[in-house]
Amino acid sequence: MIDTSTWRHAFKLDPDKDITDEHLEALCESGTDAIIVGGTLGVTFDHTIDLLSRIRRYALPCILEISNREAIVPGFDHYFIPVVLNAKNPKWLFEPHIEVIKELGTIIPWHDISTVGYCVLNRDSSVAKLTESDTELTVEDVLAYGRLATHVLNLPYFYIEYSGVYGDIELVKEVYGRLGKSENGKIQMIYGGGISDKRQAEAMNGAADMIVVGNLIYENIEAALQTVVKEEVE
Amino acid sequence: MIDTSTWRHAFKLDPDKDITDEHLEALCESGTDAIIVGGTLGVTFDHTIDLLSRIRRYALPCILEISNREAIVPGFDHYFIPVVLNAKNPKWLFEPHIEVIKELGTIIPWHDISTVGYCVLNRDSSVAKLTESDTELTVEDVLAYGRLATHVLNLPYFYIEYSGVYGDIELVKEVYGRLGKSENGKIQMIYGGGISDKRQAEAMNGAADMIVVGNLIYENIEAALQTVVKEEVE
Repeated sequence: MIDTSTWRHAFKLDPDKDITDEHLEALCESGTDAIIVGGTLGVTFDHTIDLLSRIRRYALPCILEISNREAIVPGFDHYFIPVVLNAKNPKWLFEPHIEVIKELGTIIPWHDISTVGYCVLNRDSSVAKLTESDTELTVEDVLAYGRLATHVLNLPYFYIEYSGVYGDIELVKEVYGRLGKSENGKIQMIYGGGISDKRQAEAMNGAADMIVVGNLIYENIEAALQTVVKEEVE
Repeated sequence: MIDTSTWRHAFKLDPDKDITDEHLEALCESGTDAIIVGGTLGVTFDHTIDLLSRIRRYALPCILEISNREAIVPGFDHYFIPVVLNAKNPKWLFEPHIEVIKELGTIIPWHDISTVGYCVLNRDSSVAKLTESDTELTVEDVLAYGRLATHVLNLPYFYIEYSGVYGDIELVKEVYGRLGKSENGKIQMIYGGGISDKRQAEAMNGAADMIVVGNLIYENIEAALQTVVKEEVE
């Protein structure tokens, strides 16, 4: 089992987007804690294994976020299984998991897998539309989903996902303050969505255990590299 | 946190059904491991607290299975929160939990609460209709829900619920054999539904960690008492 408890920052790479060797090297040697590989739509086996083999030249941990059956590639250090807790389409709650479990059965290495409870908050994102997520949530609602994740479902991660837009930092901070630290301290809270510069990265890093930077990699690599949380920032 | 790991048998009492003092005493002194209080429909606070106070005369553990917000009564030894994993109505998956968590917030004593992952298999039962459970499941399907419960959601209990009818013992046995013991041994598998005599109780006790006897209490108290698993049976 991988220990992510000290992680503060990860880059998320989409197997279906192109990245040069030079940019990949810069990301992997940036001081980030890990690379997460994942995407919502159209992720294929070939693109995923190709990306993994390129990341493997570097020493940092590499996690696959499993978005569909076709893109499950062996050889990652760890696997994240997403559960969208505020999905209102039951087809996107447990049905995909049941299908994969039925197909792969006993060969799944469960000790290499962690479940990530997502709360999706940008109603215009692909993931919100696909899962019909209820994104009109108050702080109390999001906190309740966080408590559901940690206390009812015993999940190790709670991921506040604004996918594509920069989120409400006051909301994130309040949920984190009430859930992550004071209440039990064992769930790791992750923030993702719309981080576009160092300032936003530092702000969200003060509001969650860990931030994930994705799209910015493909839009502005220099700005992306500056989102890495350096030790001296702490 | 209560330790249920050695439990083999429990009686389930419905707060909305009458039981005499004499029958209650017989149940509580039968050698059963615990009394579970719960019902699907119309459970009220007054009936629940009344039943609790009567059970409290005896030494055995008493657990409340929370079926609705109104019937949450303090003072039980432990609380079970059901999650119907094969529910297809999203209103019955996490929405009730979110409502209760929002209302009770920080006062919930989480260490006294365990989540029970249900797989509901009798399509004519109240719980199946209410949650629109997909009950047309093969052994492989039920096993997948069991793996979802233990590996994806880290739940401590997996409850195969035939509610009202005696289940397919071959199915229960196979799921238990592949999930409960050989695969990880940490989830406790519970069987409930339609046990009507000692023979059925013994058979299902050989096919799961623990059995729950409910309706029979109100139909035939003598037969119910004979379902208790005695030490010498092991």
